[in-house]
Amino acid sequence: MTLNDKIIKLLKGAKEASFALANISAKDKDAALSRMSLDLLKNTKYLLSENSKDVALANEIGLSESLVDRLTLTEKRVKEMADSLKQVASLKDPVGKILRQWKRPNGLIIKKISVPIGVIGIVYESRPNVTSDCAGLCLKSGNACVLRGGSEAINSNLAIHSVITKSLRGFNIPESAITIIDVADRQAVDILLKQDGLIDVVIPRGGESLIRYVAENSLIPVIKHYKGVCHLYVDKDADFKMAMDIMLNAKVQRPGVCNAIEKMLVHRDIAAKFLPQAARVLDDKGVELRGSLETLSILKGIKKATEKDWYEEYLDLILTIKVVKNVDEAVSHINKYGSGHSDAIVTKNKKAAEKFLKEVDSACVYHNASTRFTDGYQFGMGAEIGISTDKIHARGPMALEELCTYKYVILGSGQTRS
Amino acid sequence: MTLNDKIIKLLKGAKEASFALANISAKDKDAALSRMSLDLLKNTKYLLSENSKDVALANEIGLSESLVDRLTLTEKRVKEMADSLKQVASLKDPVGKILRQWKRPNGLIIKKISVPIGVIGIVYESRPNVTSDCAGLCLKSGNACVLRGGSEAINSNLAIHSVITKSLRGFNIPESAITIIDVADRQAVDILLKQDGLIDVVIPRGGESLIRYVAENSLIPVIKHYKGVCHLYVDKDADFKMAMDIMLNAKVQRPGVCNAIEKMLVHRDIAAKFLPQAARVLDDKGVELRGSLETLSILKGIKKATEKDWYEEYLDLILTIKVVKNVDEAVSHINKYGSGHSDAIVTKNKKAAEKFLKEVDSACVYHNASTRFTDGYQFGMGAEIGISTDKIHARGPMALEELCTYKYVILGSGQTRS
Repeated sequence: MTLNDKIIKLLKGAKEASFALANISAKDKDAALSRMSLDLLKNTKYLLSENSKDVALANEIGLSESLVDRLTLTEKRVKEMADSLKQVASLKDPVGKILRQWKRPNGLIIKKISVPIGVIGIVYESRPNVTSDCAGLCLKSGNACVLRGGSEAINSNLAIHSVITKSLRGFNIPESAITIIDVADRQAVDILLKQDGLIDVVIPRGGESLIRYVAENSLIPVIKHYKGVCHLYVDKDADFKMAMDIMLNAKVQRPGVCNAIEKMLVHRDIAAKFLPQAARVLDDKGVELRGSLETLSILKGIKKATEKDWYEEYLDLILTIKVVKNVDEAVSHINKYGSGHSDAIVTKNKKAAEKFLKEVDSACVYHNASTRFTDGYQFGMGAEIGISTDKIHARGPMALEELCTYKYVILGSGQTRS
Repeated sequence: MTLNDKIIKLLKGAKEASFALANISAKDKDAALSRMSLDLLKNTKYLLSENSKDVALANEIGLSESLVDRLTLTEKRVKEMADSLKQVASLKDPVGKILRQWKRPNGLIIKKISVPIGVIGIVYESRPNVTSDCAGLCLKSGNACVLRGGSEAINSNLAIHSVITKSLRGFNIPESAITIIDVADRQAVDILLKQDGLIDVVIPRGGESLIRYVAENSLIPVIKHYKGVCHLYVDKDADFKMAMDIMLNAKVQRPGVCNAIEKMLVHRDIAAKFLPQAARVLDDKGVELRGSLETLSILKGIKKATEKDWYEEYLDLILTIKVVKNVDEAVSHINKYGSGHSDAIVTKNKKAAEKFLKEVDSACVYHNASTRFTDGYQFGMGAEIGISTDKIHARGPMALEELCTYKYVILGSGQTRS
């Protein structure tokens, strides 16, 4: 069988399973998820041993320390994977909700109902926990999934997959509901991305280059979770203490995540007073500062920001600062250089806040709060498959609801169109 | 200036306008739409004279009669375009609706609010009315649009565009809110489809090959309005009279549209009785019948259906018929061969209806009603930009609500993440 035939056969299995899933009750889906959780725990030893093969090879070929760290499973990480599945089981079923219902003058009743999307392709890198996390979210939302992890994690991913698909037995759920592409050959991704008749949406999870590759090569709709170039704008009417707290939290608490701030914009009227205080506390936390020309005139000796700096997601203890003349300039700057992820204003001025919240074209806009809250759990959604920086279908935290689409069910009594 | 630079300059103008549109009131948008409507009427002569240039050329190069018909403007058609804009002005503003609002335990208030998508690209063929129809819907929903019509209609499209953008003056709406790509060179489409930083979504409107071309060449998310291979399934427990009425309506009333049926599935238990009656009335209306082997054994002498027939959208007075053994076979057949558009069951059996409505994976599923109702107006949405056969973002009739996305506005009082 050619690689092409092999992939198509796997995808057809997933498609078949997606139809079968329409008839699995919420209760059975949840029971299966709990069983998957238990089985992961029970098989910890096996999972760690398969993972060690990947880690050994990664070290052998000299992958970076941070990549090896992301790849490595520990007892604690397996427990987290198991806990995550259990938690997903406890969430409300997103399928079959009547989103809207109305009656037409001719008597037709139209119901807009949430339904699974169908088959969801996940293309991801390194972290083996994505295998069970995504499988769990897709199963809960009634979708079949096709998983394609990085070749560096293939033994770990296959081991996790073999455990959690066995868990499905006894719940009338076909194992192909969780399909894994078990070939390391990178060409498999190219083949997969052309199967728009068999996969309904692709979600890439990983670095910017992976996401771009998928977006550029896919015939299937892609929901992109790009980078987070998040801004904090400190207005002239900001409470300094609050601004300082939010700045530190958004920059320092966990700099390696997409909802951490990378840039700070400060109103000119307060810059001379605010920036030296801010620089002191940021310096204490080891944050490297870069700045616009006007910033440099206040904070002597920091590095001058280049044009590239304004677009960059550092994911590190670096903050680039610009002095702006008003909220309008802050908005324009963010809409030009930001990534449409999360941006915050700190101000006591209601008008400035309203302008910022209305005009900043990002998934999440904050008034007097840290951007670090952009997260499915923090939003109360219970889980997330990622943070969409796209505007189509899902924007911001993408959770169970966004893993569904809808259909119209129309009930008549013989109506015809005149 | 190269073609590339020219297109990018136009798109940048549209992007700028999309930000300006955020601050235009619903009242001003509606006033502008009414003005556009009036101005189209006032300029009927000019529009017809520009259109006649396209029609003359089309006849000269020998375009088919139906293409020339689609291309041709008449006084009546201009009036319809004007009416359509007026009607859009009368609809409710879809922007700024609070879709959901909740409070987190830490006091954060999260509001999910409908907002325009931004810049919408429309790539279309022949019909010049698409220019004003799409411009109107995009303006109403606060989106800038980039219009790229067929080269065969370029004079008509430019004339309509010049009229309706002049109408924007006096309402603080930048003319680039309605941007037209005024070059006939087909390469313009390829350049446009790569500008994922400047256009947020592309909606192709036209035949299958145009849609496929756009989907295959776009880096921008595409919402596809593919073909309608719609089915009517006549169950063993169908009311014959009702089934006959719906069949005739769905096949004959307007065969050239995407929500007309192309296939009929009939339960084996009633086939011998139902099919001859059905064939008689269909024959009266000049419908050509094709059939599966079992159908042929009942309706002698009709053409045998090929595998290709089951996938085909005829848009003509042709109906292909299959005898199925039960509702399960009907569902499987539709999910395999249908286009996910609109499918109907006629039955008095509640269980069969429920199964069909749940398991048929189409945008619109009907019980005891004609598929011809899949339409923005018929659904009470007031207008539509098309019928999406995609599952992502918009499914079925795509109207003002689906021309919006959402953002999260988060209101705090200094919250940071611990």
